[in-house]
Amino acid sequence: MAMKKKPVTGMKDITPREMEIRDYVIRMIKDTYGTFGFSSIETPCVEHIENLSSKQGGENEKLIFKILKRGEKLKIDTAETEMDLVDGGLRYDLTVPLSRYYANNANNLPSPFKALQMGNVWRADRPQRGRYRQFMQCDIDILGEPTILAEIELILATSTLVGKLDFENFTIRINDRRILKAMAACSGFPEESYDTVFIILDKMDKIGKEGVAEELEKEGFAKESIDKYLSLFDEVTEDINGVRRLKELLEGFLDQKIAEELETIIQSVDTVKTAKFQIVFDPTLVRGMSYYTGPIFEISIDGFGGSVGGGGRYDEMIGKFTGQKTCACGFSIGFERIVMLLLERDYQVPSNAGKKAYLIEKNMPGDKLAAIFKEAAEERKNGNIVSVNMMKKNKKFQKEQMTAEGYTEFKEFFCDGIK
Amino acid sequence: MAMKKKPVTGMKDITPREMEIRDYVIRMIKDTYGTFGFSSIETPCVEHIENLSSKQGGENEKLIFKILKRGEKLKIDTAETEMDLVDGGLRYDLTVPLSRYYANNANNLPSPFKALQMGNVWRADRPQRGRYRQFMQCDIDILGEPTILAEIELILATSTLVGKLDFENFTIRINDRRILKAMAACSGFPEESYDTVFIILDKMDKIGKEGVAEELEKEGFAKESIDKYLSLFDEVTEDINGVRRLKELLEGFLDQKIAEELETIIQSVDTVKTAKFQIVFDPTLVRGMSYYTGPIFEISIDGFGGSVGGGGRYDEMIGKFTGQKTCACGFSIGFERIVMLLLERDYQVPSNAGKKAYLIEKNMPGDKLAAIFKEAAEERKNGNIVSVNMMKKNKKFQKEQMTAEGYTEFKEFFCDGIK
Repeated sequence: MAMKKKPVTGMKDITPREMEIRDYVIRMIKDTYGTFGFSSIETPCVEHIENLSSKQGGENEKLIFKILKRGEKLKIDTAETEMDLVDGGLRYDLTVPLSRYYANNANNLPSPFKALQMGNVWRADRPQRGRYRQFMQCDIDILGEPTILAEIELILATSTLVGKLDFENFTIRINDRRILKAMAACSGFPEESYDTVFIILDKMDKIGKEGVAEELEKEGFAKESIDKYLSLFDEVTEDINGVRRLKELLEGFLDQKIAEELETIIQSVDTVKTAKFQIVFDPTLVRGMSYYTGPIFEISIDGFGGSVGGGGRYDEMIGKFTGQKTCACGFSIGFERIVMLLLERDYQVPSNAGKKAYLIEKNMPGDKLAAIFKEAAEERKNGNIVSVNMMKKNKKFQKEQMTAEGYTEFKEFFCDGIK
Repeated sequence: MAMKKKPVTGMKDITPREMEIRDYVIRMIKDTYGTFGFSSIETPCVEHIENLSSKQGGENEKLIFKILKRGEKLKIDTAETEMDLVDGGLRYDLTVPLSRYYANNANNLPSPFKALQMGNVWRADRPQRGRYRQFMQCDIDILGEPTILAEIELILATSTLVGKLDFENFTIRINDRRILKAMAACSGFPEESYDTVFIILDKMDKIGKEGVAEELEKEGFAKESIDKYLSLFDEVTEDINGVRRLKELLEGFLDQKIAEELETIIQSVDTVKTAKFQIVFDPTLVRGMSYYTGPIFEISIDGFGGSVGGGGRYDEMIGKFTGQKTCACGFSIGFERIVMLLLERDYQVPSNAGKKAYLIEKNMPGDKLAAIFKEAAEERKNGNIVSVNMMKKNKKFQKEQMTAEGYTEFKEFFCDGIK
């Protein structure tokens, strides 16, 4: 009976080498976020199909792996649509499950609730290099904290983590959805076209200011709005002074407190940071998801295109799901990207453990074998890795193989004594 | 838009308290098995439906969560059976995926290959108290090691782990499928009825020797076979002497080497053990799965009915899957049971970290806030847990709540200075 040897399309077997990195990153995440008081939670990988199809998931709802009803509930004869056949699906993110979890358990949870979630999610995306249909997400969220304490904690926790993973020279960019809107309002764009404007603005780093101007013109926006808009960006530097300047420029369009709070976030992170990174004010930062309501942020590592994490405040979303308004702020770290970067750098997980191999000659008498295992146990107790193996005929090849696995010491045991 | 708040039937949300235990057990498993040279691997949670339906999974194959085909491949109109509708399923154990993994990656894996797998599996079982449809399995397997080094390493690794988790007075029972068969043969039972005999023998601890005799009689077995069979058990003690005696009694029916190897396994484990446990020879140990071919073992914790893990040698199974004969031996630990036991004992995870809460008065100026976060960062750097929170109006209640969460120190920050 032949078995299909490859994993299902778009998913992968994980090698021992990659697992070593993954386990290390998971441990650093749990440890680091733990010191900030985040508590781990977990939800089932399977969710009600209704919860996954509530329109909060956007495009991801088209990518759900759906689960067939079982037993008498499955009626193939009369089924007309997919929804007649299924009752569950694999989660496509951790936000829908978090909302459900919070609605289900709020009475037993502290307020504010600082949650750490790590778990696989599934999306039936077109398979492509480096992107898989099963991947790990890692989110921290603070639910029920309306003040910028949430933003500061999230950014500090994430930057501390990235620093501990030996990344240097990374950048956290921060903006606020309300500043984005005020800049558009102040320039005279009509409110209903903000999203169009932001989608174009989001390309600034790729197409430059001229490109943005061109595309805005193509959309038919007024020349003076475009000029005014772009001039605002000219006036603003990527630091606290930029925030202060914008506060003046946007007077009448922006609640002054919003700029002051953004200033405090930047200032706090700058004061505390120990890792080598910078936090910059980036008025062109948009972040795709329309559910953000306040500060938004993104983290990127210099020399690696694209972000390795992002988040922001989303005070309206959980209420839409659960019917109970709950302010919320979250930061999601790109677990798979970080693992990939560490693998590419051939990252060596810090370890004090020696890696020793015992090679045992055939037909070792029972009492001598027991003594060998006792010796191994002592070494293991001291934190060393000991692999006890039969000595192969081609011992040279065996040692080469084990050396490739990272074993650095070999001890050979013969029936008539140790060599 | 109302959301379903409960998890899907038979699956559960995991609380921060349970996660603390789970994370700790996972860490102990990775650390302990790591010192024995086991490498972690992972496979996708979704498997080809064909691989899951290959008849190796027994009853579990009836409990598969099946995944609907997607896009053009799904043809609801012409579908007649479930298999027309699905192309994947959630894995119901880690053994099928391990076989596929080994077939897919054998060229890049060392030989022998010592694998550690931890991961969720899914079974659409009838929901019942304490049993869930998603649960974690934790298996160690040694592939490609034909000698008892595999058995000894697996038993030592598992008993070391259970000892580290602060369980005392546990018991490892060991037997060998070939001894089971030799005892049946020596008593004169016909070979085709061995499985029937073993199913009855397996009840010895519940119905006693008289019960076993009765049931064997009911099945119509010869009186002298039954008498002979039960007399064998009378002769045998639960230690190495028992194995030696049985070796004599079964001469002509049992390869003497099998008994000697079993003796060496017991002797080695006994010599090495540091935790408080016993390893006993149990000739009534059967283990359900018919795929075992050699030594079998089970671990149970005194005072807790039922086993918390088990395993054995299964030299034929991987070959049936992959077409390439591969000897194999594994030990599976009952992760969910162990977590449940620790929770019931209100187990406190060992930790040196202080748990401190900072309470901050409203409207703290930005520079003072930054200084508070800097102080928190110093404490976190030293391994302490610090949660920075806004001070609530009902501060007494807030502190009570946080005390319940395990916070033992509170520091209050007011706009005009620290209290």
